[in-house]
Amino acid sequence: MENQSTEEKKGGKCGGDYKHLVLGKFTQETTQQEIDDLIKGFANLVSLVPPMISFRWGKDVSQENLNQGYTHIFESTFDSTEDIAEYLAHPAHVEYANKLLPKLEKVLVVDYKPVAVHPSAECRTEIDYYFTPVLVFSFMCEPDCLPQQLNKLQLD
Amino acid sequence: MENQSTEEKKGGKCGGDYKHLVLGKFTQETTQQEIDDLIKGFANLVSLVPPMISFRWGKDVSQENLNQGYTHIFESTFDSTEDIAEYLAHPAHVEYANKLLPKLEKVLVVDYKPVAVHPSAECRTEIDYYFTPVLVFSFMCEPDCLPQQLNKLQLD
Repeated sequence: MENQSTEEKKGGKCGGDYKHLVLGKFTQETTQQEIDDLIKGFANLVSLVPPMISFRWGKDVSQENLNQGYTHIFESTFDSTEDIAEYLAHPAHVEYANKLLPKLEKVLVVDYKPVAVHPSAECRTEIDYYFTPVLVFSFMCEPDCLPQQLNKLQLD
Repeated sequence: MENQSTEEKKGGKCGGDYKHLVLGKFTQETTQQEIDDLIKGFANLVSLVPPMISFRWGKDVSQENLNQGYTHIFESTFDSTEDIAEYLAHPAHVEYANKLLPKLEKVLVVDYKPVAVHPSAECRTEIDYYFTPVLVFSFMCEPDCLPQQLNKLQLD
């Protein structure tokens, strides 16, 4: 499975505020094909479980020898802890968990809302970067550049 | 420490491709003030260590009783594993780690590059949402709307 820096989307959103993080170590008997299928199955929950907004995953590449044996990291996002609870109870998730858990030698799950420490250092998102040029361009063009008036423009 | 949904910024970027995830459980003797100071210290590494792009944190609020005792999650991002290695060796990080680790009863660290499973479901980022209107507007305005030609326009 190649690495592509993309996000699963849900309703145009790239991620919810709450992160549901699952760390796992597969059993020695689990084959690579089974691992690949389980990862695809996890990602597929985005389309089966409404409150699940996004899914991304990765393999640990750390060098500090502090991963406590966990090899795979699965990140899902949600809008709230209530949505996480709804996801956990959803039949599609229950069915998937019953396939995944027997293949894991170790599993760890945490839910949290990632926040920054310095609100004054609020990150300029792509919205900020690309909204400003739109405003500037609108100003430069004047209202006269609106399409309905284009056919009235005469150039030197 | 209040929850604010913001990101630490570095050079206009909101996050690198690689995530350095630290899970921790503080010792019973560690006071809340010490925890708050250690979190601020962790966040401050963004300004002290060039390759560290962003920092966010959260407390575990999971309900499945699978957090293996970890209570705090610290996310940092980097552009590459080489940058993570540079961060780990940086004197500011070494000094900080020597303050943090003695206060942790348990610690877990993983590094990974989160990716999606379905590249065709590539998330439309805010760049896509706001770039398209700029292009459409440019088309609607024709080249004749460029600022250097505005003074040549005559309207009916």
